[in-house]
Amino acid sequence: MSEDDLIAALLEGARAAGATLTGGAVRLGPGDDAALLAPPAGHELAWTVDDHIEGIHFRRAWGLEAIGRKAAGAALSDLAAMGATPLGALLALHLPAELLSDSAGVARLARGFGRTLAEAGCPLAGGNVARHPHGLSLSTSALGAVPEGRALRRDAARPGDLLLVGGRLGQARLELAWLESGRAGPTDLTDALLAPTPRFDLVPALRALSRAACLDLSDGLARDLPRLLRASGVAAVVDSGALPLPDEALAARLGVDPREAAWLGGEDYALLVAAPSPVEGFVEIGRVVAGSPGQVTLEGPLAGRSLGPGFDHVAS
Amino acid sequence: MSEDDLIAALLEGARAAGATLTGGAVRLGPGDDAALLAPPAGHELAWTVDDHIEGIHFRRAWGLEAIGRKAAGAALSDLAAMGATPLGALLALHLPAELLSDSAGVARLARGFGRTLAEAGCPLAGGNVARHPHGLSLSTSALGAVPEGRALRRDAARPGDLLLVGGRLGQARLELAWLESGRAGPTDLTDALLAPTPRFDLVPALRALSRAACLDLSDGLARDLPRLLRASGVAAVVDSGALPLPDEALAARLGVDPREAAWLGGEDYALLVAAPSPVEGFVEIGRVVAGSPGQVTLEGPLAGRSLGPGFDHVAS
Repeated sequence: MSEDDLIAALLEGARAAGATLTGGAVRLGPGDDAALLAPPAGHELAWTVDDHIEGIHFRRAWGLEAIGRKAAGAALSDLAAMGATPLGALLALHLPAELLSDSAGVARLARGFGRTLAEAGCPLAGGNVARHPHGLSLSTSALGAVPEGRALRRDAARPGDLLLVGGRLGQARLELAWLESGRAGPTDLTDALLAPTPRFDLVPALRALSRAACLDLSDGLARDLPRLLRASGVAAVVDSGALPLPDEALAARLGVDPREAAWLGGEDYALLVAAPSPVEGFVEIGRVVAGSPGQVTLEGPLAGRSLGPGFDHVAS
Repeated sequence: MSEDDLIAALLEGARAAGATLTGGAVRLGPGDDAALLAPPAGHELAWTVDDHIEGIHFRRAWGLEAIGRKAAGAALSDLAAMGATPLGALLALHLPAELLSDSAGVARLARGFGRTLAEAGCPLAGGNVARHPHGLSLSTSALGAVPEGRALRRDAARPGDLLLVGGRLGQARLELAWLESGRAGPTDLTDALLAPTPRFDLVPALRALSRAACLDLSDGLARDLPRLLRASGVAAVVDSGALPLPDEALAARLGVDPREAAWLGGEDYALLVAAPSPVEGFVEIGRVVAGSPGQVTLEGPLAGRSLGPGFDHVAS
């Protein structure tokens, strides 16, 4: 396929899944040296990039549509974690030789990517396609808008804040173990892993707060909570009995403690928030305290257990 | 190295080369879920992504600092081609195992990347670092600002326009051949290839025009000119005797016709413009005419010669 044909297959796949190429802030979509956007007045821009690399973040056997969905969901989740709503996305796609000549495969990848964008109301404003000598990877850059001064930075936690989680924990970790065990196909019970939903639904409740720190749980609570605490110069006490749990039947089939999975598991893209008061849609898992920056005291059922580090993707 | 140490080495390398992490529009740089920018009033945003992949766009032997410079220059060039000035860049870096533990190497890469950003006054607002099972790659997303309605789109050429080139042509192609011949080290005579300069210096003269179409010559005039013409629905007549030429001594040493190199060569990141009148800093190479969209009539010394397609990167 020529580069033009490849790009046409990609854009057609994304459009077939409901994604637009312009609209909202995007005035000029794919096809020029750069996309053009009209930034909304009274807003700041949140800007992020996220990578999905074959053999590290996914396996080809999971299916190209699922891979596209996962890559888009992970990138957009960073916008939700800043309290931003999406303006557009760019996809930098590295394609190995066998995919360069596979327009149906490229279209499936684009359908998955486009479907997640469409669900978030986010245009595919452009991107880049390049040959790669080895594997498939997707690097997704996303832009969002957040009302001036209302971004949910991770350095905003203060002693006395409640620690809140919006979304399930440990589910993607269980689904990954289930897939890797060879007992499931990629379409069984693997929506949390393969079709993560950026939690834009939770953003309005967070924007209504006078102050909140937030990040999305991509690497797991065990790794990500200390990041929020260090950025804010605070410590925390967590009640492990209060963690939102993954599917207990799946945990039992795998012989895994669902609570440990909730503490260690990554790629759930739930939101972790520190805020002065409860927030609808979130469960309280602990409190921010003064103390050594980043230190976590784990109480309840997991207290005193020796637990490994958090999530480290498929190739760890 | 831990991920935190890697990121620290990267940011320190970029800062050592003079790059900033915030400033201008960038209010929050690396370290949160996303960077935060305050878009300038009265402007549109130009937003692009560009990839540099080992074995396709560069070889590791060229040196990590040069690779960083080349990747940043190519991405920023897309902003210049839209008539935009840079607001910030994000670097998505895929590192193979041996670089994950090489903080000095990562710092050299970051120094090159940061030096080109610093020269353009462009903060390194953030990015992402990920392991890659095979090679090194850099995916650079860049944001720029262009006064409302003044973007230099490639669909703006009209019959009667002059075709103008700002910058040298064919030089990167010669330097690549020189490097690949094994007769030169990566620091001899290879600045066009390894340290491309985004032509922000030419932007003010282009913004002063009432109308101009523009793109940057990344794949060579032979490939890129038809893209501009097709986007505008026009044809062109080019005087091959008027092309700005590369280093003729180097061409002679390689036994290459410098004029053919100027027509076919890519990665020079010169600007190609169609405009109603001459522009300072540009040379006139032909005219836009009515005709089959994308068609080019080559006059002068190259007329009637059978010439291969344009530039196709190192692995072609």
